[in-house]
Amino acid sequence: MEENILNEEELLQEVELLLSKRQFTKIKEILSQLNPTDVASILSQIEMAHLAYIFRILPKEFASEVFVDMDSDTQEHLIKSFTDRELKEVLDELFVDDTVDIIEEMPANVVKRILKNSQPDARKAINEILNYPKDSVGSVMTIEFVDLKKDMTVADAFERIRKTGYDKETIYTCYVVDKNRKLEGLVTVRTLLLADSSAKISDIMETNVIFANTLEDKEAIAIKFDKYDFMAIPVVDNEDRLVGIVTFDDAMEVIIEESTEDFSKMAAINPTTESYFKTSVWTHSKNRILWLLFLMLSATVTGMIIQEYETAFKTVPILVSFIPMLMGTGGNCGSQSSTMVIRGLALDEIKSKDLLKAIFKEFRIALVVGFLLSVVNAIRIIIMYNKSQDINAYILALVLGITLVLVVVLAKVIGCILPIVAKKCKLDPAIMAAPIITTILDTCSVLIFFNIANVFMCQIIK
Amino acid sequence: MEENILNEEELLQEVELLLSKRQFTKIKEILSQLNPTDVASILSQIEMAHLAYIFRILPKEFASEVFVDMDSDTQEHLIKSFTDRELKEVLDELFVDDTVDIIEEMPANVVKRILKNSQPDARKAINEILNYPKDSVGSVMTIEFVDLKKDMTVADAFERIRKTGYDKETIYTCYVVDKNRKLEGLVTVRTLLLADSSAKISDIMETNVIFANTLEDKEAIAIKFDKYDFMAIPVVDNEDRLVGIVTFDDAMEVIIEESTEDFSKMAAINPTTESYFKTSVWTHSKNRILWLLFLMLSATVTGMIIQEYETAFKTVPILVSFIPMLMGTGGNCGSQSSTMVIRGLALDEIKSKDLLKAIFKEFRIALVVGFLLSVVNAIRIIIMYNKSQDINAYILALVLGITLVLVVVLAKVIGCILPIVAKKCKLDPAIMAAPIITTILDTCSVLIFFNIANVFMCQIIK
Repeated sequence: MEENILNEEELLQEVELLLSKRQFTKIKEILSQLNPTDVASILSQIEMAHLAYIFRILPKEFASEVFVDMDSDTQEHLIKSFTDRELKEVLDELFVDDTVDIIEEMPANVVKRILKNSQPDARKAINEILNYPKDSVGSVMTIEFVDLKKDMTVADAFERIRKTGYDKETIYTCYVVDKNRKLEGLVTVRTLLLADSSAKISDIMETNVIFANTLEDKEAIAIKFDKYDFMAIPVVDNEDRLVGIVTFDDAMEVIIEESTEDFSKMAAINPTTESYFKTSVWTHSKNRILWLLFLMLSATVTGMIIQEYETAFKTVPILVSFIPMLMGTGGNCGSQSSTMVIRGLALDEIKSKDLLKAIFKEFRIALVVGFLLSVVNAIRIIIMYNKSQDINAYILALVLGITLVLVVVLAKVIGCILPIVAKKCKLDPAIMAAPIITTILDTCSVLIFFNIANVFMCQIIK
Repeated sequence: MEENILNEEELLQEVELLLSKRQFTKIKEILSQLNPTDVASILSQIEMAHLAYIFRILPKEFASEVFVDMDSDTQEHLIKSFTDRELKEVLDELFVDDTVDIIEEMPANVVKRILKNSQPDARKAINEILNYPKDSVGSVMTIEFVDLKKDMTVADAFERIRKTGYDKETIYTCYVVDKNRKLEGLVTVRTLLLADSSAKISDIMETNVIFANTLEDKEAIAIKFDKYDFMAIPVVDNEDRLVGIVTFDDAMEVIIEESTEDFSKMAAINPTTESYFKTSVWTHSKNRILWLLFLMLSATVTGMIIQEYETAFKTVPILVSFIPMLMGTGGNCGSQSSTMVIRGLALDEIKSKDLLKAIFKEFRIALVVGFLLSVVNAIRIIIMYNKSQDINAYILALVLGITLVLVVVLAKVIGCILPIVAKKCKLDPAIMAAPIITTILDTCSVLIFFNIANVFMCQIIK
């Protein structure tokens, strides 16, 4: 076995050196030995002008695999430099779902050329997949799968796999359909290999098949891959006809993409599909500014409330110094709860109907946590202000203790209600995360604090 | 094909009804038609006392599959009710990596019984896997794979698969090893099926194999499955001997677990592997309280700084009302950056060596975002305080504008430095997220604000 974990930078330098010497045969030799994904990554860093030259010397099938793994800028550049015949050759080697992925990132004129140069069958399928809603199973499925008939024998099945398998994304799970293409069962190559070659498919197929509908949410289906350890899941249309499959690699991509999207949304960023460094400063700024503006203006509400209590903090200026601690604790408690609930919803561990159960759980957690925080905070206040001439440390500790418990309870309950309610309203729960919850809680914490402080006002001052 | 997406609650009621009538044959009939994962979920909700009865009537192989998918409490209860012979029967059907997963959740006496009742080979393998570090590839790998020799023919290979494949976690990728068990290449069942049955393995195997070392980080390897669309990756020891494989389903689980862990850490929660509702109120509280305490006490630093500037906000009380907005904006900007960087590091899109590149990017984003926020904020202040008798709105807008730009730049730069530095120090970048960054920025925002306000103090007041 050859050493394969090569340094990509060294490889890139080597290719560029050979390029300057015009030693194309040597370049072909080096690149053909690598994984297509790694070649795609190297070629994406080569000067665009040389790209088409190198691409043309790669073996055809290999070149198509490299093409699929390139970033969309490089793909677009290559397509523009292709003749129609070259484009056709590449497209013929692609799976329909990969072509759809590419099309989704291309400008209209490139899309038109791709469709024009696709096979009629593929073109029809591409158009169908493009018509499925963005987050649906239909939009990520693959239409290249092996279908068998119930009355075939194992030997027939292997013959069919050998004859048609070359073009299929997976051959390891084969689907049994009737004459109307209704899904009747599935059989794995493992079962086929371990069965007698004269056995009937109908006798060895599994009939208890878990399937998805084209219009179901792709994230919900992707999570099922983890639960059931699926390699692929069949996809049926509204008439129960088998129209495609989703394979584990697509499911894994969906899972990673959706997590990344949730991370972004939970940090008040509009999600993108491009990687960090590929995204321009302007796009990054655009994705962040709207939420920041909204949150900044919302925070002024808290400021205005503080202004209302000007008399309070002019009389007891020390009150102001507790604002950061209260706002921080409220925000942190709220985002702890909302994060747990958002993640639980995403993994299907928490369902919308669990709202009351979740509130009750968070309420009890809040009591435990709030009480402990109050005690520690009280100790700190008593140590710091016990000897103060102006302040009654015990009353101050009491005011903050009551405030803390109330703030924590409110934070935990709001943090668990908002994401679940968002889900019930068909919104993405991930937007109900730290930034929004913190802003809401800032206002609530300040209100609670000054109201309680007001009650004990005369007692705080010695 | 039968309708399979049955309502789990209805099934559970049905089973409980049949149980009360002692109709075990009917229960067996219903459960055997379901997916083992669903049966595990139903049985986890059955009264513990009846559990062993039902488990015993299930077909042996099916029962083992159900057992693997149960939660650890149910597994523990079952193991305790098993005779040694029953335990042995279940264990014999399990893959070593599944047994290891079970063992990791069991108390010491149960672990001892499991090891005692495992086959000697399996016991040795279990102990080896248990010895790998928690986050290493070795700890999640599987040792049941198909190995072939270079000089076999395709027909020989199929014979070997048929003979030994039954016990293997995957048969679809077979690994070619030499007499010292050094990895020489791999061949997929797809290649075998499409090849001539007399072809030599050495002629059709792929030699350019990407592999992992037992001690590598499991998350880094799992992410490679997405990049390269692997179905399995071979794992070698320090002497380059093939010792196991990681399959796509294990990789998917690692990816989901690691994301969940990051979500928890980024919300200042100690991560657990149990699901939300399975975790007790005490455990939830314990996982959240330490960070909350630490952050609460850190926030008092900000409070103390505010106290220092008592004169400033006694003279211009309106200053206090901007504290929430500044702290909020600083925190949000910082957590936007840290989230993007933490996720980028996890997906290997950002590397430790990119520190300066990332700082420069965030710096430019901060200038754009900070400027826009300042402008909007200035407009708001001028509209609100233009007619004020006491305050010069233009100077106030200027003070807040300068503060906002400085706070945003600081926030974005700190938010991108801390996670990368954490990674360089071999810490998990995810801890350098919103809660810690917000707390640091609260202090900085207040300091910047009052210092700048002090400079313009006389001008603010009309």
